[in-house]
Amino acid sequence: MIENRTNPDPRSARTGFRAGDVFPTSGIAPGFAQTNLIAVPKDWAYDVLLFAQRNPKPCPVLDVTDAGDFTTILAPGADIRTDFPLYRVWVDGELTAEIPDATQYWRDDLVAFHIGCSFTFEHPLMAAGIPLRHVEQNRNVPMYITNRECRPAGRVSGPTVVSMRPVPADQVEQARSITARMPAVHGAPIHIGDPAELGISDLSRPDFGDAVELQPGDVPMFWACGVTPQAAVMASKLPFAITHAPGHMLVTDAPDSDYTLDLA
Amino acid sequence: MIENRTNPDPRSARTGFRAGDVFPTSGIAPGFAQTNLIAVPKDWAYDVLLFAQRNPKPCPVLDVTDAGDFTTILAPGADIRTDFPLYRVWVDGELTAEIPDATQYWRDDLVAFHIGCSFTFEHPLMAAGIPLRHVEQNRNVPMYITNRECRPAGRVSGPTVVSMRPVPADQVEQARSITARMPAVHGAPIHIGDPAELGISDLSRPDFGDAVELQPGDVPMFWACGVTPQAAVMASKLPFAITHAPGHMLVTDAPDSDYTLDLA
Repeated sequence: MIENRTNPDPRSARTGFRAGDVFPTSGIAPGFAQTNLIAVPKDWAYDVLLFAQRNPKPCPVLDVTDAGDFTTILAPGADIRTDFPLYRVWVDGELTAEIPDATQYWRDDLVAFHIGCSFTFEHPLMAAGIPLRHVEQNRNVPMYITNRECRPAGRVSGPTVVSMRPVPADQVEQARSITARMPAVHGAPIHIGDPAELGISDLSRPDFGDAVELQPGDVPMFWACGVTPQAAVMASKLPFAITHAPGHMLVTDAPDSDYTLDLA
Repeated sequence: MIENRTNPDPRSARTGFRAGDVFPTSGIAPGFAQTNLIAVPKDWAYDVLLFAQRNPKPCPVLDVTDAGDFTTILAPGADIRTDFPLYRVWVDGELTAEIPDATQYWRDDLVAFHIGCSFTFEHPLMAAGIPLRHVEQNRNVPMYITNRECRPAGRVSGPTVVSMRPVPADQVEQARSITARMPAVHGAPIHIGDPAELGISDLSRPDFGDAVELQPGDVPMFWACGVTPQAAVMASKLPFAITHAPGHMLVTDAPDSDYTLDLA
């Protein structure tokens, strides 16, 4: 459950997270893009960037820092070591810490990848009148590891992770179409309907985030998810990585519209 | 001027190019994606891939090979050392050879980047009734080096290159909209109208390809171009690179529709 859900502007949100706020960012600062984080030693950066290129649905890269740089063009003034609500630290593919401030773990050889997040298209979905059950139920979005292997790149491989949103059947097509216009934040869903086709046996037991209750007539829609690199960190036993905690994103200053194709 | 322009299927086209055909590929095998090539030593691959990530309009990456591999998932059975019509070989940023077969120049440490080409959206444009002047005039598309610097990445920097197509004023918006749906092959134009805004002083003197005559009422439309990495090779003095010759692309087996967003 989420203890706090406010709607500040991006900078205020980041200031709060820097000061110690910890909660998922779905619904925070609507209208601004949010990003996933994976920071790896420079020696691994090519493999990770190539993995992202080969798997653009789960891993749309919005920015890559130079080694040791903890700023991003997506949010001037932000410090990416502190301005996510919650971080995960990985050693040899094992989760070793979950902390709200990654400064003490930061290294000068880390290259940070900022990957598009589906929270970015939630505002356009809501604006179109499509209900978001996890927001209504005040929960983190549920995420699942699927049976769809990503295309490997060098030493990096792993399964595709998806986020799931239940959508009323008569709004499924509209939700698909709206998100298809935003490929940089995962775009159209990779699957609609039966979870078993993705190897998901029980929707009530997500691998990350919170379970969400479907309402009568809801159809589960599955979007590729920026937690996929974390699954690859685990599967590939990266010697070291810092990531965001699932659902706890960087709220950037980039408006949604920057990632929405103008097809008027 | 183009000596020969046929419309075979992709495999037949590649077989011809492998056997020695040399002509630009605009209009060849309509309905299938075409790609630009830049192959660089592995030591430079991260910088090139990051340059592409930071400049997605001119450099949409459709495939990256592992070092020394001369195949691509985009065209099973193709040999990328021979199946482009014409290649350029670069040493220390200088053009040193233009040859129809790159086999003798290939190296085991080369990583090949296949970058989306605007020829891919020419078929949808023609299908919508939009005239393509360079095709009518049997010429290669004109390309220009602009005053818009790409965002640098490591040791790689350079200006944005554009292709130009004159479009009747009343079809400009339609052409923009059609191409906007194909971001992986450069997407919407980066500029419409006055060439001077891109630092282009004379449309009749392109930097690559052939000059094309505008018809009365035509408006020049400028799309980011996959020759941009060649300009970066020059500007950054890469020690070694093999590229396609401008306008002489790989005709892949991937249908246009693979790179067209489904927004129905």
